[in-house]
Amino acid sequence: MPAETETGVRDRLTAHRDRFDARFADYFDTVAHQLSPLGSFAPEALALVRDMSLRGGKRLRVALLYEAARLVTSEAVAGLEEAALSVELLQTHGLIHDDIVDDSPVRRGAPSVYYAYRERFADRPQTALGLAVLAGDLAAFLSVRVLLTAPVPGELRQAMAAVQATVGADTVVGQFLDLERDFGPLPDRALLDLVSEYKSARYSVLAPLRLGLLAAGADPAAHEGELARYATLVGIGGQMCDDYLDLFGDADATGRAAGSDLRAGRRSYAVCAVLAAATGPERELVESALADPGCPAGTVEQVRGLAGRHGVDARMRADIRRTAEEAAAIAAGWRPRWRAEAVDFFERLPLWAARRAR
Amino acid sequence: MPAETETGVRDRLTAHRDRFDARFADYFDTVAHQLSPLGSFAPEALALVRDMSLRGGKRLRVALLYEAARLVTSEAVAGLEEAALSVELLQTHGLIHDDIVDDSPVRRGAPSVYYAYRERFADRPQTALGLAVLAGDLAAFLSVRVLLTAPVPGELRQAMAAVQATVGADTVVGQFLDLERDFGPLPDRALLDLVSEYKSARYSVLAPLRLGLLAAGADPAAHEGELARYATLVGIGGQMCDDYLDLFGDADATGRAAGSDLRAGRRSYAVCAVLAAATGPERELVESALADPGCPAGTVEQVRGLAGRHGVDARMRADIRRTAEEAAAIAAGWRPRWRAEAVDFFERLPLWAARRAR
Repeated sequence: MPAETETGVRDRLTAHRDRFDARFADYFDTVAHQLSPLGSFAPEALALVRDMSLRGGKRLRVALLYEAARLVTSEAVAGLEEAALSVELLQTHGLIHDDIVDDSPVRRGAPSVYYAYRERFADRPQTALGLAVLAGDLAAFLSVRVLLTAPVPGELRQAMAAVQATVGADTVVGQFLDLERDFGPLPDRALLDLVSEYKSARYSVLAPLRLGLLAAGADPAAHEGELARYATLVGIGGQMCDDYLDLFGDADATGRAAGSDLRAGRRSYAVCAVLAAATGPERELVESALADPGCPAGTVEQVRGLAGRHGVDARMRADIRRTAEEAAAIAAGWRPRWRAEAVDFFERLPLWAARRAR
Repeated sequence: MPAETETGVRDRLTAHRDRFDARFADYFDTVAHQLSPLGSFAPEALALVRDMSLRGGKRLRVALLYEAARLVTSEAVAGLEEAALSVELLQTHGLIHDDIVDDSPVRRGAPSVYYAYRERFADRPQTALGLAVLAGDLAAFLSVRVLLTAPVPGELRQAMAAVQATVGADTVVGQFLDLERDFGPLPDRALLDLVSEYKSARYSVLAPLRLGLLAAGADPAAHEGELARYATLVGIGGQMCDDYLDLFGDADATGRAAGSDLRAGRRSYAVCAVLAAATGPERELVESALADPGCPAGTVEQVRGLAGRHGVDARMRADIRRTAEEAAAIAAGWRPRWRAEAVDFFERLPLWAARRAR
């Protein structure tokens, strides 16, 4: 991809993120004011929800939302800010509960909400667990409430809230599928894709697309098939990248030791591909590392080596590239109907994101 | 209260409950059909959500909702069924997560969802915990989604969903207040009432009132103050009854050993009243039983005895009665404005509910 294209995507992500982050902080100030007379536990939970929310990375979902509205108009669009808040609060809800499900101490470079509570209530683990569950619940209800009080007509409020309530339930189903994937027989590709679709594509890509179009006055239902297909491909591509980097990435660049999925017994795209390629003693080696948190770095290195000999990494890179190209081709088809500048963004985004795995 | 009045309230509760329970089962069949292609964990979670939901007791919330609509009209009201489903799903969500927060093995006479999973995944407690958190999340999103797909105009859908999203957040705040109540200095009466208002009155009484009026075409905002006051009094009265029965009730009638709040360190209305009344060695006795799960039945009996000598039980009964009368007086004031038959229900309900503590 030409460097100019990469810069274009990155600059637009950064601009959306910076504007949104300031608005997100204001939102939390307002809610903190509402909660201030209600004891200390609820305000403290909100402060943790806020801290984790504001540590958000690229804000890809927010960019997708704003660019979806720009498919229709370059004017400012009422309700878009509340939609962005809803999207990110739903994300925060999911991360807080996900960190309970996975018992994860760290999220976005700082203690997870669960572990922040475990530190604060070191002698009362049950209280810490309860408070973390409730903090996630608070974020979930706020994510719907913020849409239902947006300064837009009731019909739009309800259409946007319906998107989020539906996708909230879908994402929970994705979490169930994700846990189920690591039980029973080795999952096939269709199940891995279904997990990606439900666990991330629907709330991270499809919902922002729908919300942006709705706020801008368009009817996403008229284009549901291609929006869903685009979203699913971007979701699958993103998950494949994450899984690729977890096994094949450079620890210095990713910031964590390679093979965490393997050690945790997570049947990621990469782990499944290695298991499918390895036979005999190689398969035994992979199986010995799988779901062994104490598996030594040397064993992970051996798994990487045998995966390379079987061409697993090269096939995954090609697969990621192909998935991105397919998504880009769908977005390119929007050019006759929607604004070129925003179509460009959606066309370039998958290819830009796929750069991570190269 | 004359027996005729009691029968009136009970018969109406039963009629609402029986009609609703059949509809609730149908709803779960529909959602089960939607989830059936999506693995086995999500359908299993829905089955647990369903079982716990259908074990619901009196369905007081559903009756409040239907009777609120009957304040305005005796005709069938569109959207009321979906509102009832939403109210009960929100309740299910709260109970599932509450049983994680409190580590409760039993709910409504059967294993809690958390403990059902702990039994199923006996060798994987982390998986059981994660699945229980997610099952509660599923119920929460379904409770909003069911309103946003109700066959009524978008404006009404959004007004009803806004009630539930707001009250969902309020109830989480109530859960935080409830946990906080048992830390730090002994709570005063204002804090106990605030817990009752946020933890139960808002979602159990005020939200059904608002939803019923909205569905029937009335504007609850025009009567917000008195609706909220009625709801808060009913919520406080109900909590005081529960707390009274926990300490002073007949174990044969309540179905559980007396003093569970005391043993768990819960600073209920009754526990706080006993602590306030006892001094010297009596106070030491109460403190020794507080938060001691192994506290012997004899000690609980001594605490009941000293509470009786100080008139704590008689004062609580009088307080419960006074609270119910105050709520009834508010409802009586609705007679000029709303339909007499439904006003009767709201007037009689608090007195009927207060009978439990006598």
